[in-house]
Amino acid sequence: MKKVLSGMRPTGRLHLGHYLGVIKNWLELQEKYDCKFFIADWHALTNKYKDTSELKENIRQMIIDWLSCGINPEKATLFIQSGVKEHAELALLFSMITPKSWLELNPSYKDLKFNLYYQYLRDFLAGKQIKIIQTPPSESFDEALKKATGKQKNKIFEEYLREAFHRAFYNQKGIDFKGLKEMLIKFGIQKKIVEEVVRNLEEGDVGKDIDTLGFLAYPVLQAADILIYKADAVPVGEDQLPHIELTREIARRFNNLYKEIFPEPEAMLTEASKLPGIDGRKMSKSYNNAIYLSDSKEEVDKKVLQMKTDPQRVRKTDPGNPEVCIVFDYHRIFTDKETVEDIDKKCRKAEIGCVECKKILSKNLNRFLDPIRERRKEIEKDLPKYEKMFFEGTEKARKEASETMREVRKAMKLWEF
Amino acid sequence: MKKVLSGMRPTGRLHLGHYLGVIKNWLELQEKYDCKFFIADWHALTNKYKDTSELKENIRQMIIDWLSCGINPEKATLFIQSGVKEHAELALLFSMITPKSWLELNPSYKDLKFNLYYQYLRDFLAGKQIKIIQTPPSESFDEALKKATGKQKNKIFEEYLREAFHRAFYNQKGIDFKGLKEMLIKFGIQKKIVEEVVRNLEEGDVGKDIDTLGFLAYPVLQAADILIYKADAVPVGEDQLPHIELTREIARRFNNLYKEIFPEPEAMLTEASKLPGIDGRKMSKSYNNAIYLSDSKEEVDKKVLQMKTDPQRVRKTDPGNPEVCIVFDYHRIFTDKETVEDIDKKCRKAEIGCVECKKILSKNLNRFLDPIRERRKEIEKDLPKYEKMFFEGTEKARKEASETMREVRKAMKLWEF
Ligand code: SF4
Ligand code: SF4
Repeated sequence: MKKVLSGMRPTGRLHLGHYLGVIKNWLELQEKYDCKFFIADWHALTNKYKDTSELKENIRQMIIDWLSCGINPEKATLFIQSGVKEHAELALLFSMITPKSWLELNPSYKDLKFNLYYQYLRDFLAGKQIKIIQTPPSESFDEALKKATGKQKNKIFEEYLREAFHRAFYNQKGIDFKGLKEMLIKFGIQKKIVEEVVRNLEEGDVGKDIDTLGFLAYPVLQAADILIYKADAVPVGEDQLPHIELTREIARRFNNLYKEIFPEPEAMLTEASKLPGIDGRKMSKSYNNAIYLSDSKEEVDKKVLQMKTDPQRVRKTDPGNPEVCIVFDYHRIFTDKETVEDIDKKCRKAEIGCVECKKILSKNLNRFLDPIRERRKEIEKDLPKYEKMFFEGTEKARKEASETMREVRKAMKLWEF
Repeated sequence: MKKVLSGMRPTGRLHLGHYLGVIKNWLELQEKYDCKFFIADWHALTNKYKDTSELKENIRQMIIDWLSCGINPEKATLFIQSGVKEHAELALLFSMITPKSWLELNPSYKDLKFNLYYQYLRDFLAGKQIKIIQTPPSESFDEALKKATGKQKNKIFEEYLREAFHRAFYNQKGIDFKGLKEMLIKFGIQKKIVEEVVRNLEEGDVGKDIDTLGFLAYPVLQAADILIYKADAVPVGEDQLPHIELTREIARRFNNLYKEIFPEPEAMLTEASKLPGIDGRKMSKSYNNAIYLSDSKEEVDKKVLQMKTDPQRVRKTDPGNPEVCIVFDYHRIFTDKETVEDIDKKCRKAEIGCVECKKILSKNLNRFLDPIRERRKEIEKDLPKYEKMFFEGTEKARKEASETMREVRKAMKLWEF
């Protein structure tokens, strides 16, 4: 049977985006394949090593989230990465045969840096009373930049801010801080503020935290995670494809240098969840716009009420456009097809109010979450029993991993103990 | 009691240089301190991962060499690194907190590259019938370069070749291949040959083998080797001082971020052996000029006969100068003081011949090696029994290491199994 491996970093409670993007897929995979799902706690350290106070609780929440969604230890092996030391041993051995140059071009490194820098830029400006406007601008960035004169003081569309930084950051010759300065000033932000924030970005500590060996090396640890179980396939999002390619390259190099031990795993491309957060941006813990699997009925009701609707629909008597309504995005996923069509029609004719429409969504969301909540309650009543399932899974994984390591050491002609 | 840790890469049988530079020191340390000595087999992979066929035999020879010299498993813990997986786990955790920039300046990386390149340059020229003259030149490099005209064809003093490459290599702006070309042509090597070898150095695969993650990361593995036993002191040569400083920095960083767990180990500076090889160059396996602890009486006699003496002393009736005689360097170490003084006097007055002088050295060297040979014979008769001592040592080290790892995981607030 095909062997499938997948892991998740324990960074906090799971939200609907995680469910749709990962868990839903796992629920199908565990029915068909020999699956291993693991909590990648070592990986969580790569960008969050300074404050580990939440790590244990995050792992605990991940155990609860997985099990309450129906991830099943009788169908898949569930384990915690740091319980299988063999991953570290294999990563060390792989490090010996992996050219540095394979790692230095890692795109997620750059993307993470982009996000850290951008977050800093945004927060700094907001802190200086610069108004960052959320509604989408009516012109493209290029048109707006052409017309911009720096006259409209101290406000900027979020889209423009992001695009300006994007252009400066993904510059061929390194980050173009000078260009960034010019753009921000042109868009009307005070010169003094711009100079201060750009200087901080250029010389300060932002992003320096991830300039570690661990961050550089984590794709090698990931290769070890996968190859130590001789996985045939790894479900991944588009952004993870380069890492799987690296894993395949490491497998090939090992097989060529020593002995044919590792299959080259294939990537099973899974689509990322397109469900937005309640404010319309990408659903994310850091935007504070997520609906969690562990949210209570009351929390869900409240969040649905806060959801953005068609911004043009001011009064109930205005006809609405479901295409630009976040609530409707949710209906498409959590509401039956017939009702969705009905809402679509009625909204356009102003025959349904947004409050009523949201109530329907609330009901459906809660109906979806109720069985998960029920299982959660069960699990929380006797957590040690469920944690034990992960201990047993870890033990099982460890046995398999140490079997592979025996082969690896033999192939590499290392000392046998 | 002070805890001392030291390791050796299993790269082949030990020679007298190893004995004088390391083993002799260990023999004293094991009497006074709580010592751990380990065979650093994982480290041996950093620059020799492509061909591991000799690794096991090298470890076996190292076990025999250590024990036959009197390194004593009842006094010190003797173990093999790859048997203590905890080193890999701690190295992984340290990698998360170690800035890349701390590693990129590692001087031994540059030095190793220098040696690989130089070896290639030298072998290439020798292969093209360029005569590489071993006797020391009578003028300094600078004087010679000033006078050089390129007329004296296709021979060069080894000293000049090395110096020319040294200047080109340790250039502030990267390797100065152009300067190297000019120097070699000026010293009289054919332009075509110079251009070919420099192009190979510039574009070929020489030295690329060590551009690996493992090579970049090995000082972090070394820090884990040391800190996992909370060693107070590490005997090292001058060239290893930057690594110990890095170990101390990692210890400080860990202690600051999480909890005061690791002492900062001090470096116990040990002098490198100054005993030259039989040809007067540094004693080294790669120069084929070493006397091994495992050499037989016949091998030692033969090597002593090959030893370089005062080059000015052609006939037995010429007075000699012990200051420039390799045989005399050996006498200073292996012959009693009185005899050394006697030889000194007699050589200068041509009252002793080199053959006789070498016979005395042979006798003394063999007297030094005899008890080591005897123990070696004992050990080889029942090798499994002695290998077992290393297994037991490894087990003992593992227990201590896993105790530290428990503390480390707790301090870092990782999941507890
Ligand atoms: S009625 Fe529903 S779909 Fe239409 S705008 Fe309001 S919330 Fe959105
Ligand atoms: S007599 Fe001894 S010390 Fe003097 S040159 Fe000969 S070998 Fe060297």
